[in-house]
Amino acid sequence: MTDKNFAIDLVEKRAFVQLKNEFSQMMPADAAQLIGEMFEESESFGEKELTLTFRILPKDMAAEVFSYMDTKLQAILINAFSDSELKAVLDELFLDDTVDIIEEMPANVVTKILKASDPQVRKQINELLNYPEDSAGSIMTTEYVYLRKDYTVLEAMDRIRSVGIVKETVYTCYVTDRKQLIGEISLLDLVVADEDELIENVMDASILSVNVKDDREAVAKLFSKHDLAAVPVVDDENRMVGIITFDDIIDVIREENAEDITMMNAVVPTDDSYFETSVFKHASNRIVWLLILMLSATITGFITNQFEAQISAIPLLVAFMPMLTDTGGNCGSQTSSLIIQGMASDEIRLKDFFRVLFKEFRVSLICAAILAAVNFGRIVLMYKDVTIAAVVSLTLICTVVMSKLLGCILPMLAKRLNIDPAIMSAPLLSTVVDSVSTLVYFSIAMSMLKF
Amino acid sequence: MTDKNFAIDLVEKRAFVQLKNEFSQMMPADAAQLIGEMFEESESFGEKELTLTFRILPKDMAAEVFSYMDTKLQAILINAFSDSELKAVLDELFLDDTVDIIEEMPANVVTKILKASDPQVRKQINELLNYPEDSAGSIMTTEYVYLRKDYTVLEAMDRIRSVGIVKETVYTCYVTDRKQLIGEISLLDLVVADEDELIENVMDASILSVNVKDDREAVAKLFSKHDLAAVPVVDDENRMVGIITFDDIIDVIREENAEDITMMNAVVPTDDSYFETSVFKHASNRIVWLLILMLSATITGFITNQFEAQISAIPLLVAFMPMLTDTGGNCGSQTSSLIIQGMASDEIRLKDFFRVLFKEFRVSLICAAILAAVNFGRIVLMYKDVTIAAVVSLTLICTVVMSKLLGCILPMLAKRLNIDPAIMSAPLLSTVVDSVSTLVYFSIAMSMLKF
Repeated sequence: MTDKNFAIDLVEKRAFVQLKNEFSQMMPADAAQLIGEMFEESESFGEKELTLTFRILPKDMAAEVFSYMDTKLQAILINAFSDSELKAVLDELFLDDTVDIIEEMPANVVTKILKASDPQVRKQINELLNYPEDSAGSIMTTEYVYLRKDYTVLEAMDRIRSVGIVKETVYTCYVTDRKQLIGEISLLDLVVADEDELIENVMDASILSVNVKDDREAVAKLFSKHDLAAVPVVDDENRMVGIITFDDIIDVIREENAEDITMMNAVVPTDDSYFETSVFKHASNRIVWLLILMLSATITGFITNQFEAQISAIPLLVAFMPMLTDTGGNCGSQTSSLIIQGMASDEIRLKDFFRVLFKEFRVSLICAAILAAVNFGRIVLMYKDVTIAAVVSLTLICTVVMSKLLGCILPMLAKRLNIDPAIMSAPLLSTVVDSVSTLVYFSIAMSMLKF
Repeated sequence: MTDKNFAIDLVEKRAFVQLKNEFSQMMPADAAQLIGEMFEESESFGEKELTLTFRILPKDMAAEVFSYMDTKLQAILINAFSDSELKAVLDELFLDDTVDIIEEMPANVVTKILKASDPQVRKQINELLNYPEDSAGSIMTTEYVYLRKDYTVLEAMDRIRSVGIVKETVYTCYVTDRKQLIGEISLLDLVVADEDELIENVMDASILSVNVKDDREAVAKLFSKHDLAAVPVVDDENRMVGIITFDDIIDVIREENAEDITMMNAVVPTDDSYFETSVFKHASNRIVWLLILMLSATITGFITNQFEAQISAIPLLVAFMPMLTDTGGNCGSQTSSLIIQGMASDEIRLKDFFRVLFKEFRVSLICAAILAAVNFGRIVLMYKDVTIAAVVSLTLICTVVMSKLLGCILPMLAKRLNIDPAIMSAPLLSTVVDSVSTLVYFSIAMSMLKF
């Protein structure tokens, strides 16, 4: 990839022929990244230079480079475009990419895009914009190749030759009959088939499809399960309305993953990237859970309040509290993260509840035994106090077992109640474990130590 | 999908014609899932019934159903197969699927598979098995369509017609010259090209490729960035050795993600699924980090030891410790999870260090102010003690700011040292935050309270 400073240098020297030559040797996504870096990191490369640079891009790659750019740069360019320039770019874009761009743009830019689109395209854009955010409809494109069952293979190939180039994928063609989806055929099967054969005789009639209202995460699972490259999307009457392709599914999987990790760490998930999110938005995404968890943690405070006399008498007891609550929290989040992932991949189902519980119980016994033994040895060595060592180690055993059981009960309970199980991960779980382990600790201490 | 109990019933009644009919109407992945459930959940459906059921599958779907089965079922079937049956299944499998299966099998089954393979296939399998686990080589297949530059389009189409059907993807064909990769051409471009044109005139010579030793995660990023369906794999001398297709990349993304979440929750990642992992293996995957974290947590214990006199005098101080350390841990893991994700997606780079630090500093001030205000109000209301409320709230402000800064410093430091940043997530971070916040707490208490 061309060096950023070298490219900026070319712009400053107005060496546009050489710059165009550099771009023509790059992949579109790399060109978009380079232009983005030039704009972000150089003072001398402003909106004017951006527009200039875009205009010198080789014609056959301009629209694709545009589709890989950041929202901010796209907005600047659209504002700077003449109507015919905008129309040229939009004509080359896949419809689902256009819709993705529109969803991120301020209203005045959206108006400009819709004005530049053909009436029929505008209608399709508006339809796509209306699907709920996480639905199959929101990630599909309406550009696909459809064939009629009474075409011959030769007619089908002619149709592909005439329309195929602008369609997002023609590796699978869909056969429709009065808009009803009745079969599919791959380009490869068309190529190897007899030219005079009718499509209905060579098509595959047993096909997978998804409903336009299906959840996009369920569609992603279907892709993984059946190793699909594309899937047709139908409405409630089995009328074909679009297709979803594997590249959109890769984006869905990445986004859903990011959302899970974010939720598991007590942050409200957003679609925006880290730097695109303002400081206030970052703070507001985090403060809700911090407040909930902070106030929940006061329960553990109330519990220690009840044992003030014991703490005064043996303040050493406090020294083991962080170790006990931390270990409990870690044990719990180990289990809950495995259970949450197992449920997400459909390996663990609600009916497996007792099987999981029994497995975690056995795992927790092994972990508890080892941790308690190490801990007992350490305390005896350091404090020469076998009773304290026994109290702490006994508490540790109870804490580990209880945390691991809670680590599978809480996420499965959430799932049962149709709440996202990712909520029941480290932060919330630790708060619960803290209270219970503190209570267990002082109860055991009360009964084993003389106060 | 056919009901499991209904299918088992058919097996028990030996109604094999009807059962075959049921299977023929299912997608291969669904058939594999159904057979798996029958085997797992029914006493009457054992190894004999499994083999019987597999044998009645329609010939054209048997191998594909096999490729979607669990390792355990595959092993049982391979053991039960005659040599010719095994050969028939292996011939239909894609080579990368065969290698995936071999990697999971016990030694005796591997020997049986290798014996049933053709010498040439056996050589390819052995080569694929030798690539490091996370390399591009380990996920590629050696089955692709290659063309010569001096073919005409007509000759190329003939070649595709003759070999294409058994290759994993023919939607892109690769042009090689003395094994060197020199270009690619899509099936669509072939279909629309003039029959007499030479391949070298219609191929695309500017292509992306990956090295066989590249990390598979880097390959996955390349797929996302450029929306690829397949990428050619070359060796150090630019000789083409295989291709990687999008379906393998979807698996890589899912696996890498599961690995990250597992590491972020202090569990050693494995390839095995939850139920496939034994209780002892589960325990050993978890105990190492539990021990490290438990022993690290004792540092916080030492710190509280130094303040025994203060704890004895005002045991109420202990009541706020869990709230302070929990909030610190949560603040830190919010930040670290966002930074770890930002670095994984290449949005956040090491050179952004001060930009990130400044952003987190401002976010932490907002969060700290709100949390401290709520906390101050709560303590004054509940304990009527403004000094204690001030001590706790001041500590809270320091803890929140410090945790958020540590939450970006530690993962970026890890990255700088070439350690996986996922290690610096909630568990380890909480332990560090605990110590520092406890020290800050008692120091502030010492200076503001009369002891």
